[in-house]
Amino acid sequence: MQFHHHGYVSGDPRVKDAEGTGIGRSEDLPNEVDVLIVGSGPAGMLLAAQMSQYPEVTTRLIEKREGRLELGQADGIQPRSVETFQAFGFAERITAEAYNIGWMNFWGPDPADPQRIVRTTRTADYAYDICEFPHLIVNQARVLDYFAEAAADGPGRIVPDYGVEFLGLTVHDDGDHPVEVRVRHTAGPRAGEERTIRAKYVAGCDGARSGVREAIGRKHVGSMAAHAWGVMDVLVNTDFPDWRIKCAINSRAGNILHIPREGGYLSRMYIDLGEVAEDDDHRVRQTPIAEIIRKANAILHPYTLDVRQVAWHSVYEVGHRVTDGFDDALDADRTPRVFLTGDACHTHSAKAGQGMNVSMQDGFNLGWKLGSVLTGRAPESLLATYGAERQPVAQQLIDFDREWSSLMARKPEEISDPGDLATYYLATAEFPSGFMTQYTASMITGSDAHQGLAAGYPLGKRFKSAEVVRVGDGNAVHLGHHARADGRWRVYAFADRDGTALAAWAAEAESLFARFTPADADQDAVFDVKGIYQQPFEEIEVTTTPALFQPRSGPLGLVDWEKVYAAGPSKWTDVDIFAARELSRDGVVVVVRPDQYVAAILPLDGTAELEGFLQGAFLPAR
Amino acid sequence: MQFHHHGYVSGDPRVKDAEGTGIGRSEDLPNEVDVLIVGSGPAGMLLAAQMSQYPEVTTRLIEKREGRLELGQADGIQPRSVETFQAFGFAERITAEAYNIGWMNFWGPDPADPQRIVRTTRTADYAYDICEFPHLIVNQARVLDYFAEAAADGPGRIVPDYGVEFLGLTVHDDGDHPVEVRVRHTAGPRAGEERTIRAKYVAGCDGARSGVREAIGRKHVGSMAAHAWGVMDVLVNTDFPDWRIKCAINSRAGNILHIPREGGYLSRMYIDLGEVAEDDDHRVRQTPIAEIIRKANAILHPYTLDVRQVAWHSVYEVGHRVTDGFDDALDADRTPRVFLTGDACHTHSAKAGQGMNVSMQDGFNLGWKLGSVLTGRAPESLLATYGAERQPVAQQLIDFDREWSSLMARKPEEISDPGDLATYYLATAEFPSGFMTQYTASMITGSDAHQGLAAGYPLGKRFKSAEVVRVGDGNAVHLGHHARADGRWRVYAFADRDGTALAAWAAEAESLFARFTPADADQDAVFDVKGIYQQPFEEIEVTTTPALFQPRSGPLGLVDWEKVYAAGPSKWTDVDIFAARELSRDGVVVVVRPDQYVAAILPLDGTAELEGFLQGAFLPAR
Repeated sequence: MQFHHHGYVSGDPRVKDAEGTGIGRSEDLPNEVDVLIVGSGPAGMLLAAQMSQYPEVTTRLIEKREGRLELGQADGIQPRSVETFQAFGFAERITAEAYNIGWMNFWGPDPADPQRIVRTTRTADYAYDICEFPHLIVNQARVLDYFAEAAADGPGRIVPDYGVEFLGLTVHDDGDHPVEVRVRHTAGPRAGEERTIRAKYVAGCDGARSGVREAIGRKHVGSMAAHAWGVMDVLVNTDFPDWRIKCAINSRAGNILHIPREGGYLSRMYIDLGEVAEDDDHRVRQTPIAEIIRKANAILHPYTLDVRQVAWHSVYEVGHRVTDGFDDALDADRTPRVFLTGDACHTHSAKAGQGMNVSMQDGFNLGWKLGSVLTGRAPESLLATYGAERQPVAQQLIDFDREWSSLMARKPEEISDPGDLATYYLATAEFPSGFMTQYTASMITGSDAHQGLAAGYPLGKRFKSAEVVRVGDGNAVHLGHHARADGRWRVYAFADRDGTALAAWAAEAESLFARFTPADADQDAVFDVKGIYQQPFEEIEVTTTPALFQPRSGPLGLVDWEKVYAAGPSKWTDVDIFAARELSRDGVVVVVRPDQYVAAILPLDGTAELEGFLQGAFLPAR
Repeated sequence: MQFHHHGYVSGDPRVKDAEGTGIGRSEDLPNEVDVLIVGSGPAGMLLAAQMSQYPEVTTRLIEKREGRLELGQADGIQPRSVETFQAFGFAERITAEAYNIGWMNFWGPDPADPQRIVRTTRTADYAYDICEFPHLIVNQARVLDYFAEAAADGPGRIVPDYGVEFLGLTVHDDGDHPVEVRVRHTAGPRAGEERTIRAKYVAGCDGARSGVREAIGRKHVGSMAAHAWGVMDVLVNTDFPDWRIKCAINSRAGNILHIPREGGYLSRMYIDLGEVAEDDDHRVRQTPIAEIIRKANAILHPYTLDVRQVAWHSVYEVGHRVTDGFDDALDADRTPRVFLTGDACHTHSAKAGQGMNVSMQDGFNLGWKLGSVLTGRAPESLLATYGAERQPVAQQLIDFDREWSSLMARKPEEISDPGDLATYYLATAEFPSGFMTQYTASMITGSDAHQGLAAGYPLGKRFKSAEVVRVGDGNAVHLGHHARADGRWRVYAFADRDGTALAAWAAEAESLFARFTPADADQDAVFDVKGIYQQPFEEIEVTTTPALFQPRSGPLGLVDWEKVYAAGPSKWTDVDIFAARELSRDGVVVVVRPDQYVAAILPLDGTAELEGFLQGAFLPAR
C-alpha cells in the first residue's frame, strides 16, 4: 500500500483525498451525469468503486431499495473474485470474516441400506492449487458493503442514491448526454417525484428482470427448466457431521447442495424440490419453509436438522438464459451508450456459485473502459469491446451451469459412477474459479506472435501473479498485487540476463508512454511500468536503474521505490518468476489492462510493435 | 471469526451488540466509575479495548489532548504485538498498511576511503524465524486508531473522553470506590471545570511524566545518559540505495538508525547528536531541524538527502529508568488500587523499537485481571500479580536497551568487528521480538512438574501457536489464533493416542469448569476448552466427541463447531502439532491465560491438580 507521497497522511490510508467531482459532491441526484449506474448489486457496486477512481467523471448509482442490502442472495466467492477484491483493497478483510472452502464432500445412498446416506468422497477444493487466493463463502451484502466503502473512500466519493427507481430510457442520436433516463424517487424528501436524468452512458446492473434491458429492446434468450429448488440460510443443531463442509448430497429422497456460511454456525442449503409440472404456473414458488425443512430432513436421513432460526429462504426454478446483446448498439457502427451487466444479461442456477462472480467481472471489464473514454485516454470504439468480450463468457457460464446443475439434480439410479461428480468438479475447476476467461484479438488484445517469450502469461487471460523480490526493501511480494483497480495499465518489463536490453527498451519506451500520458499528470498516471531483473536483488540498486523505473510523482516529486523487482529465490521466497511463468531469459514485456488481463506480449526490441499497440488502444494525450 | 450464534448478523461482524454498560453509555464522564484509565497511549488504548469486553464494568478513559493522536512518537511493531493485534481482531488490516521489515543492513566506513560509508552486512529479520507474525513499522497513531475501533465496537462501547486532564488522586482506605481522582475538563462544554471522579481502580497510562505516578509517590529510578539523538520523519529524494531498508549506519561523522515507514516513501531517522555536556541543561533539545538534516547528510556521505517534507521531528536525550513499584500497594498486604503502565513506569531509548510494544503488554497483562476481579471471577489478590510480573520485564527491557543503544552509539574506532552489531541483533532476537517474557510461579502460573509433557509450551511464556486441522470443516488453522482478547481462558486438551483418556478427562473436567462459570452464562464463557486429536481429521467426527467440546451457546443454544481439532499433516498443512511442540503422545492439558501466557501444564489424569489450580486462580461462580 503506497501513500504519503502527496504529503504525510495521519489517518486511514485507504481513504483517499477527494478530487474533481468528489469535492463537494451533491447529495441530490443531479439532472445531468456522465455515467448512470442502475442497480446496486455486485456489478453495479463494483462499477461505482471503479468509477470513483475517475473523479473527473460524474458517476451516480441509483437503486430503488431504500438502503443497503440486508440479507440473502448470492454468497459464493470464487478465487478470481478474491483477486479482484485485492485490487479494490479489501481482500484481507473479507477473507478474515468469510467461510473458507477447504473441501467438497459427496454423499450418496449407503449400498447396505439405501434409505440412509453415507459420505462417498472427500475432494480438496481447487483454489490453492490454481492460485494464491481462497475460495470463500460470504453473504453478498458484505461484498456490497466493501465495494460501497471503496466507492465512498475513492477520490470520486461515490455513494449510492438509494430510493430512486428506474422507469425507462431513450437514447437520442445527438447531444453530449444522449441518454434520457426516467426515474422516480421512492424515498427521501422527493419521494413520489418523477424526473428525467440525462447521461452520457448508462449501465444496466438491475438484475434478472432488468428494466434497462427492456428499455433497449434486448431479449433474454433461453428457457425455464422444469426443476425447482428451495434455498434456506439456517441456524441449526444437527448430528450431520458435515454441517461445516460444502457437500453435494444425493439420496433416494432427493438432492441437497450444502454450503457452510461465514461465522461458524450458519449454512445454506439448496434443496431439490423435484420436477415442476408444465401447468404448475410457478405455484412451486409458494412452497412453505416447513415443507423445505421436512424435505431436507428426508434427504439427510438418518441425520436430522433441528432448525433454530431461518435467516432467509426462497424457492426458484432453474432457468438458463443469455441476452441477445450486451449493449444498445444494434448497429455495429454505432457507439454503444447503454450496457447490460450481471443478471440483466445472464441468468442461471445458483449451484455452481458463479452468478455474483461473473457479474463482478462484467463490471470490472466495463468500468475502466468507460473511465478511459470519458477521460479522453481511449477512443469511443473501446466501448464496443465490452459486449464482444463478455457475451461469450456469459454463454460459457450458461453451458457450464446447465451441465453442473443437471449433474446435481440426478436421481441415484441415474448415477453409474458415484465419483463422477467429484471428478467433474475438479476437472472443470478453472472455469468456476474464474480463470478460464480468455479474450480474443481486438484493439486491446494484441498479436500472439511473441507468446513463446512468456508461455505462463497466455494472451487474453488474466495476469497470474507470482512472488518476486522488491529491490527497494528486499521483501518478497506478489508482483500482481501491486496492481490496484485504479484504471492504470501495468507494463511488466522482464529483463534480459544482464539488463542491457532492458535499459535500451526503457530509454525508448519512456517517450512512447509519455505520448499517451497527460503532460500535467504523474509520469506513471496511465502506465505503471515495472522492471523485473533476473539477478538476486542484492545485485541491483534501485538508484542505478533506468529513469523509467524511478518516476517522480505527487506534489513533492518523490521517487517511487516500488517499480524495481528481482526474481527469487531469496531468503523470503522460493519462487523464480522467470521459471514459474516460463519467461524468456532474453527478456519480455507483458502489457496488462486495468482489469488485469494480458493485452500484449512483446520482445525487448519490439518498441515499434508496442507503439502500434498503444496507437490502437489509446488516444494521444491532449 | 465466529458470529451469527446470537441470530443472523447482516452488517460488519466485528461490531458486537452493545451489552451492559455499553447500552446507552453516557457521553458525559460520570462521577463514579469502576475503572478509570488515564492516558490514551498504547497501554491505555489497549486497556480500553480489553475492558470493552467486560460490559458489566464501567470503564472510562481520560486524555487531556482534545482528540486522536495525529503524528509522531513510536512506530516499531514487534511480532508479539502483531500477535496481540490478532487477538484484538485487526492484525491483517494493520499489516496491510504497515512497512514489513525483511532485512536490517549495516553500513560502516569504507576501508579504502573512511570518509565514505559502504554497506557491510545484510541481516535477514528474525520475525518469521521465530513465529508466524511479521515485524512491522507503522505510526503509533494508527495503532491507537485500531484499538479505539476495537474499544468502540466491543460490547462495552468504550470511547475515550478527550479533553480531560488528570490533576491528582487520593486513595482512601474504605468505600466501594476508594480512589478519588481530580480532573479538569480542557475542552468541550465543560471546559475549565474541575471535578472529582470516584473509581474502584485507576490505571496510570500517562507517559514518562506521569501525574499518576507522582500522585502515588512512586519514583522513576535511573539516570539520563549523556547522549542526544535527533529523530525525524521525512519524505526525501536520495541516492542512498537503502532508503527503504532498516539500517544501522556508523560513520566517522556519527551514527544513524534508519527505519523505513509505512506507505513506501517516508522514513524515520534517528541521528546521533553526540555527547551532551554536563552543563548542557537540555539545550541540545533546541537543535534545529536544519542542523539535524545537515548532520544526517554528513553521516551518509557520499550519499545525500534532498528533504522534500519533514512530517515530524524531535530531539531527546537517552534515559534509562524504571519505577520503584508498578502500583500503589507500598504495603504488600494491601490491595493495589492504582497501577502504572508503559512509559509511566519504564523509559528508555527508542533504538530497539520496544517502548510501544512493552507498554501494550503491560496493558494486556492488567486488563483481564481488572475484568476478572470486577466481575467476581477472581479474588482481588490477582491484582498484585500485575506488578510482580511486569516489573522484572521492565528491568530486562532497560538492560537490553542500554546495551543496544550503547552499541549503536559507538564511534568507528571503538568497533573491532564490524559484524558484531549484526551478530548481537540476531542472537538477542527473542527479547526484542517480545517472546522472552516468562512469568514465574504464582496463583496464575502453576507448577512445572509436568513441563516434560509439553516441552514446546514453556510454563509462563506465551502460548506459541501452530497449525492444526479444524475437524468441523477440514481447514488448516492456527490453533492459537482462535483465542481472541475476550477475557476468556483457553484450555487445550491434547488427546492420547486413541482418545480414551481425553474422553475420561473431559467428563471429569466439565463439572470442574462449571463450578467457576456463572450458571446463567454460556458454558464456555470463562473457559474455552478445545480438544486436539492425534488422528487425521478424517477419522474424527465432531458430533461424536465429548460434550465438553460441543457446548451450546447464545440464545438459540447452538452447538459450537470450532472446539475440535486434529493434528496434521493433511492436505492443507505440513505441521503435526504434537511433533512441533513436543507434546506427549499420552496427551496433555495446557491451560492458557486470557493474555495468552501458559498458566498450567497437566496430565490427562491430573484433574485433581487442575482443580487445585482453578481454586487458586478463580472464585467459585456466584
